[in-house]
Amino acid sequence: MIVILKPHPDKEKLHQLSSTLEGYGVTLHVSEGAQTTIIGLVGDTSRVDIDLIRANELVENVTRVSEPFKAANRKFHPDDTHIPVEGRLIGEGTFHVIAGPCSVESEEQIIGVAQAVKRSGATFLRGGAFKPRTSPYAFQGLHADGLKLLLQARKATGLPIVTEIMNLNHLDLFSEVDVIQVGARNMQNFELLKELGRSDKPILLKRGLANTLEEFLMSAEYIMAGGNEKVILCERGIRTFETMTRNTLDISAIPMLKHLSHLPVVVDPSHATGIPWLVEPLAKAAVAAGADGLMIEVHNDPKHALCDGAQSLTPAEFDRVMKVIEPRAALENKRMGLA
Amino acid sequence: MIVILKPHPDKEKLHQLSSTLEGYGVTLHVSEGAQTTIIGLVGDTSRVDIDLIRANELVENVTRVSEPFKAANRKFHPDDTHIPVEGRLIGEGTFHVIAGPCSVESEEQIIGVAQAVKRSGATFLRGGAFKPRTSPYAFQGLHADGLKLLLQARKATGLPIVTEIMNLNHLDLFSEVDVIQVGARNMQNFELLKELGRSDKPILLKRGLANTLEEFLMSAEYIMAGGNEKVILCERGIRTFETMTRNTLDISAIPMLKHLSHLPVVVDPSHATGIPWLVEPLAKAAVAAGADGLMIEVHNDPKHALCDGAQSLTPAEFDRVMKVIEPRAALENKRMGLA
Amino acid sequence: MIVILKPHPDKEKLHQLSSTLEGYGVTLHVSEGAQTTIIGLVGDTSRVDIDLIRANELVENVTRVSEPFKAANRKFHPDDTHIPVEGRLIGEGTFHVIAGPCSVESEEQIIGVAQAVKRSGATFLRGGAFKPRTSPYAFQGLHADGLKLLLQARKATGLPIVTEIMNLNHLDLFSEVDVIQVGARNMQNFELLKELGRSDKPILLKRGLANTLEEFLMSAEYIMAGGNEKVILCERGIRTFETMTRNTLDISAIPMLKHLSHLPVVVDPSHATGIPWLVEPLAKAAVAAGADGLMIEVHNDPKHALCDGAQSLTPAEFDRVMKVIEPRAALENKRMGLA
Amino acid sequence: MIVILKPHPDKEKLHQLSSTLEGYGVTLHVSEGAQTTIIGLVGDTSRVDIDLIRANELVENVTRVSEPFKAANRKFHPDDTHIPVEGRLIGEGTFHVIAGPCSVESEEQIIGVAQAVKRSGATFLRGGAFKPRTSPYAFQGLHADGLKLLLQARKATGLPIVTEIMNLNHLDLFSEVDVIQVGARNMQNFELLKELGRSDKPILLKRGLANTLEEFLMSAEYIMAGGNEKVILCERGIRTFETMTRNTLDISAIPMLKHLSHLPVVVDPSHATGIPWLVEPLAKAAVAAGADGLMIEVHNDPKHALCDGAQSLTPAEFDRVMKVIEPRAALENKRMGLA
Repeated sequence: MIVILKPHPDKEKLHQLSSTLEGYGVTLHVSEGAQTTIIGLVGDTSRVDIDLIRANELVENVTRVSEPFKAANRKFHPDDTHIPVEGRLIGEGTFHVIAGPCSVESEEQIIGVAQAVKRSGATFLRGGAFKPRTSPYAFQGLHADGLKLLLQARKATGLPIVTEIMNLNHLDLFSEVDVIQVGARNMQNFELLKELGRSDKPILLKRGLANTLEEFLMSAEYIMAGGNEKVILCERGIRTFETMTRNTLDISAIPMLKHLSHLPVVVDPSHATGIPWLVEPLAKAAVAAGADGLMIEVHNDPKHALCDGAQSLTPAEFDRVMKVIEPRAALENKRMGLA
Repeated sequence: MIVILKPHPDKEKLHQLSSTLEGYGVTLHVSEGAQTTIIGLVGDTSRVDIDLIRANELVENVTRVSEPFKAANRKFHPDDTHIPVEGRLIGEGTFHVIAGPCSVESEEQIIGVAQAVKRSGATFLRGGAFKPRTSPYAFQGLHADGLKLLLQARKATGLPIVTEIMNLNHLDLFSEVDVIQVGARNMQNFELLKELGRSDKPILLKRGLANTLEEFLMSAEYIMAGGNEKVILCERGIRTFETMTRNTLDISAIPMLKHLSHLPVVVDPSHATGIPWLVEPLAKAAVAAGADGLMIEVHNDPKHALCDGAQSLTPAEFDRVMKVIEPRAALENKRMGLA
Repeated sequence: MIVILKPHPDKEKLHQLSSTLEGYGVTLHVSEGAQTTIIGLVGDTSRVDIDLIRANELVENVTRVSEPFKAANRKFHPDDTHIPVEGRLIGEGTFHVIAGPCSVESEEQIIGVAQAVKRSGATFLRGGAFKPRTSPYAFQGLHADGLKLLLQARKATGLPIVTEIMNLNHLDLFSEVDVIQVGARNMQNFELLKELGRSDKPILLKRGLANTLEEFLMSAEYIMAGGNEKVILCERGIRTFETMTRNTLDISAIPMLKHLSHLPVVVDPSHATGIPWLVEPLAKAAVAAGADGLMIEVHNDPKHALCDGAQSLTPAEFDRVMKVIEPRAALENKRMGLA
Repeated sequence: MIVILKPHPDKEKLHQLSSTLEGYGVTLHVSEGAQTTIIGLVGDTSRVDIDLIRANELVENVTRVSEPFKAANRKFHPDDTHIPVEGRLIGEGTFHVIAGPCSVESEEQIIGVAQAVKRSGATFLRGGAFKPRTSPYAFQGLHADGLKLLLQARKATGLPIVTEIMNLNHLDLFSEVDVIQVGARNMQNFELLKELGRSDKPILLKRGLANTLEEFLMSAEYIMAGGNEKVILCERGIRTFETMTRNTLDISAIPMLKHLSHLPVVVDPSHATGIPWLVEPLAKAAVAAGADGLMIEVHNDPKHALCDGAQSLTPAEFDRVMKVIEPRAALENKRMGLA
């Protein structure tokens, strides 16, 4: 961190500022130029409150040179993190596909979809029991009953479950869930993140619709700072001015996140645009850009799905996408499935 | 709502679709053209699940003609809503200024600021006890102790309190708070909104950083659908590509929200840009565009504030802004203060 | 400008880098810390090519402390610029309203509108002869005939003319035009800007739909660097994710541009949203935020306008807006009209 | 196109509106419901002025069902367009890489880079002679001398030349250039587009920084409407709130453009982020998403490049990217090079 001071700082106040900065446990390098004094902060600056320093009356400008996150930072953890789930390892070198319906609707539906996606090579089942809907009048999910149906589908297929939590009081309800998902709209629900930091479940954290990569990693940091280091990052499209696609998949987020962090990165090509025929090309692009996995919506009867049916693949379409993905994952040296 | 069908729909399936649509309690007007059949839905379409219809195999396209919100909709509630708080009425025709520090830090600080802003004409005291910070390592507020200090400041000055809730389990803690604020990052924390819908407290709901006005009103609808109609909308700047200001104040949101909804609209010119000298021109613009009030950060010692000090006004600067606002509010036929 | 070097720079290469930097005519302040060497550049850094320095192998990071524009910069020209046009002065302390139709359609139309807006207090007539349309099949304007009709309307009313240029070969055609407008889509048509820099006409430069304020001022700088210092900046709304309004008026651009630059700033509330009933509140907000004028679309028959009729005011609606603006401009110490 | 009328339209005015609509050469299907009358327009609606209809006093709302572009529209031209350039065909099934420096600097530089990229498999040479720079004080290119050097490099290597035009008067200067590039900032410089429509040169049209795909295709339509159907679309990153990358590559633009249009689509992964180590993963993603080619910045000495050196690859880095691309292009059934 580089702190640039206004000309001719008061000696006494400069002394106070230096003490404050040293209080963060960093080392100071002061360079006094003819006109400008510059203070360089060396060490772990993730705990330095940049707003506070910027507000100091002596300070002209502050520039971060290093990132404000630490637990999630590859500089401090050069090796890739691999997160174990039911005999699977999620992280660099493997490639897992999480598939299933937007929302759990019935025993027949969820078990049927689970069996189909397993046959096609998916290694995780997704399905929403608690649904974050823009409208209070839209279907909100089957709640606890939905979770039960997911566990039945797990029993029937052996596929571990990924499902979204919306309420920090629900952690007990999710005790048998394998991976807990945090949705895009809750990416900065810091109270929920703190609660999940106290859990030992793997967390699939989705990037917010208008959040920067730095903010995304800071939200991962919230969970990790609480003691839970099992965070999987999920890019799912950001909000831009383009209206033909529901969101814009930020494909460079994949290599950039893997550069900045040691955490696994998966991509959701279904929510990225909301258009089912775009899932295949985006899935291929995500593999090519280095993703460690995909999350894809599959519904046995998209025409009658209770939510987001318009963006779901049929099991047959999903099977085709899997066949297309396989040789491409191999080319990127990613092991697919349980092999 | 206008549903445009694909050419030559199957009679049987069209009958099913029509039954589904009628199940929402709306009246259908079917126009069969030579090539295209169009179904118009008349009545309250707020409960119609547009995604579900769009996924139907007969459907080419669906266009909403009316808004998906109802309780918040001016069409159904033509008269302006006025929300009573401790002898004040918030809504069209009045103008209330909510002022105070980003976060509560000490008894001396909060009472000092409260007395100062009251002298200048503020009619509400704001102050954060629970702070949503991007970094888990930044100051997170004094929590319950902060709430106690706010209540002391209320006792000392008579100013009702506006403060932010972040956790749906805290509602009891907030029982003596006058207005509960939902921050921008929680605008689509639907579980929190539902919980607040069961409360009888006035809710100041901030627009999310990248949320459309329709989504903003849908979040108000969540609270209102639960039975709590006391919602105050707060525009606080949206995220754009511009980097000179932290956010971009969407000034047209004020007249547009007041056109679409009967709810009061206030503006936060402090968070809108993060630059203290911009508070005055933006506050003036907000008054001119029809806002029903302002929310302004004031700190007795911005240089040493524990958060967002860089964007806070000093009490003297705030006093100047209030003097500038007064004649302009009068010109817009807004009664300021308790008069 | 602050150049931060990578650790342990090669002495020889550092010498070369220093020579390159001094070649820009700036003074260097080198601070060698234990780990990091920092070079501060003092003086006029507007001609320093930041990309070139960033690419240097010794360089870790470069931060601009001062703005990259000079002629447009208030730091170098503290006094407000006033641009004289036919007895009017555009700039701080005055307030001019430029009104007229999107496009010139006929003698009757343009003279009729000119007379009407003059009666209501407009001091300039706008009207498009060359229209930048998204579709090649849309009406593109009357071209040279449109310019002739504008000059007839000027003769009939005495109102000076503001009209848009799209082609750098048209400068001769525009010889009798009073103020030449550069549209948002041409804000970075640098060849056109250079050509206008060689003219002595006042230029009304519109901000691009997705351009930062810094880029906007750099485009003004292009014109000024060519010798033409008569530039009027026009904020007309930027592109965001919001879809209810065609664009989002960046109200903070007004005080920010006036802070950074000495040039006049006007606002176009018609294009800012594309919705006629929003013109009045946005015009009021623009006055309150410090604008030096407005540009408003007025059409005698909006229902049959050949372009953008949907956003035009009728002469009666415009008259009402002018009556509303007058006391507000007075309150901001702006002289309206020719007084 | 669907025109929804306000309730109870005046018979006479409805007759006029119908005549106006029929004047566009479309067939009308009028459906009179109990409350709402809807007019469907069938046929080629690309020439219908939607703004004009929206402004009509009878009209409540207008929705486009079909796209406003025709010459560029795959619906009217189902077969992929292949553009021949010096024995190469650009379009579906082939894969061409255009490589070279941001700007031409010297004979030695451009010939050296041309030979290097040819050796690695590039089939076109790029290089800027006229450079659109944000600052008037930055290096603007060698102009006519730069074009001469490019032609020398073509002679030396046989690589056809792609270079950017900025001024519509320069068409003669570009008579020996093989492919004329229109830069992102000129995507809506309609006068330039019209001039290029009268040329018979292939045009590589870059998407503007904040332009929708529809606007992008409308700009292609401008060139095609003038008679020049040889348009190559280039996605090069759009502007979003993310700041870690200069722009955000819109990867879904590739399949979406190829779905909507028959024109070839190439991707510029260098400008998309401005970060050289991201070129490889983005190039791979572009191939996987279906691009017909790439445009990559390569400089023999990026550290001393006169523009954008920081984003250029060295010839060795470029060679590595080409080796990585080859098997992936083959997997997508794209023939690379001249084979």
